[in-house]
Amino acid sequence: MNERLKKQMEFALEIDKEKNIFRQTHLSGNGRRENDAEHAWHMAIMAYLLKEHANEKVDIARVLMMCLIHDIVEIDAGDTYAYDPKSKETQKAREDAAKERIFSMLPEDQKKDLIALFDEFEEAKTPEGKFARAMDNLQPLMLNNSNNGADWREHKVKADLVYGRHNRTREGSEILFELTDRILKDNIKKGNISE
Amino acid sequence: MNERLKKQMEFALEIDKEKNIFRQTHLSGNGRRENDAEHAWHMAIMAYLLKEHANEKVDIARVLMMCLIHDIVEIDAGDTYAYDPKSKETQKAREDAAKERIFSMLPEDQKKDLIALFDEFEEAKTPEGKFARAMDNLQPLMLNNSNNGADWREHKVKADLVYGRHNRTREGSEILFELTDRILKDNIKKGNISE
Repeated sequence: MNERLKKQMEFALEIDKEKNIFRQTHLSGNGRRENDAEHAWHMAIMAYLLKEHANEKVDIARVLMMCLIHDIVEIDAGDTYAYDPKSKETQKAREDAAKERIFSMLPEDQKKDLIALFDEFEEAKTPEGKFARAMDNLQPLMLNNSNNGADWREHKVKADLVYGRHNRTREGSEILFELTDRILKDNIKKGNISE
Repeated sequence: MNERLKKQMEFALEIDKEKNIFRQTHLSGNGRRENDAEHAWHMAIMAYLLKEHANEKVDIARVLMMCLIHDIVEIDAGDTYAYDPKSKETQKAREDAAKERIFSMLPEDQKKDLIALFDEFEEAKTPEGKFARAMDNLQPLMLNNSNNGADWREHKVKADLVYGRHNRTREGSEILFELTDRILKDNIKKGNISE
């Protein structure tokens, strides 16, 4: 096998491990916890279906790839819960080391390409980065809402923290932020998110 | 919420169920069985990384979407094991009914779009369809090979059946078929696939 294909296949096998990284979000129907690979798959399809609601026109292939790869670093760094400030402090250092190790398995040009996609997602400044980030918020919000806010209740999450995260959805899509806001207000009213 | 967004979100929630459809393939490291959503995610990333090996130039966004949605019908129709001839007989009827029900949840234009992608994948006649189908073969082959062929051994699968499936990888990529052939020959030699 040529060296390039060998590297590509080694990377492809390595990322299988992402299926073992479990998140705080539970599947609909009060199911088990969701893993990163499932979350990424779901976000990507949602991005495709909801792209008409993006504030700016997006290159959908870039958005899809950002959705698909944005959690690969968690193979080494683990999942960082969105509302855990302690874990958030060390997140960047853990994820930077993971990014270097895992993407270095690829041929150099593909390492650069995937790191560029990863960084664009993290920075969330381009139309594609902003819209992909909106999907990263909306997908677990949708699942959690379908379970009557069970994940928020479990973690006793407060409204200001939840809005701190979801306000950024507005940068990707005003329309999807309106939907988010309606869902959050409803869950505050029900007592699933405390004020 | 406008009617269009409501439909899109109902569909997005419905496809969450794909995470509960388990396949015969096991995760690397002799892990648990893989589900359809994880498989689709994995195939899509592989398609992006391996696209240079496609026989013909492909529109990668189309390939990604085919990979991501090709198993949605299994929410209703269940997983059909590639080497189970009985189950294969009824597969088309089961999947056609599922396709109609599930994609009808979307706005009409998006229903048409996703069904077109689904059918293009199934027919595997365009460069994109052929390459996405090659990924549908290569991804479980890679996992199974990493587990020393445990899935083939469990099902006592014969070489002619396995080749019957994997020969079609050649239509999408000669180079990836060469790799497939090398892996299959090695597993026949080891007795993981019977002659």
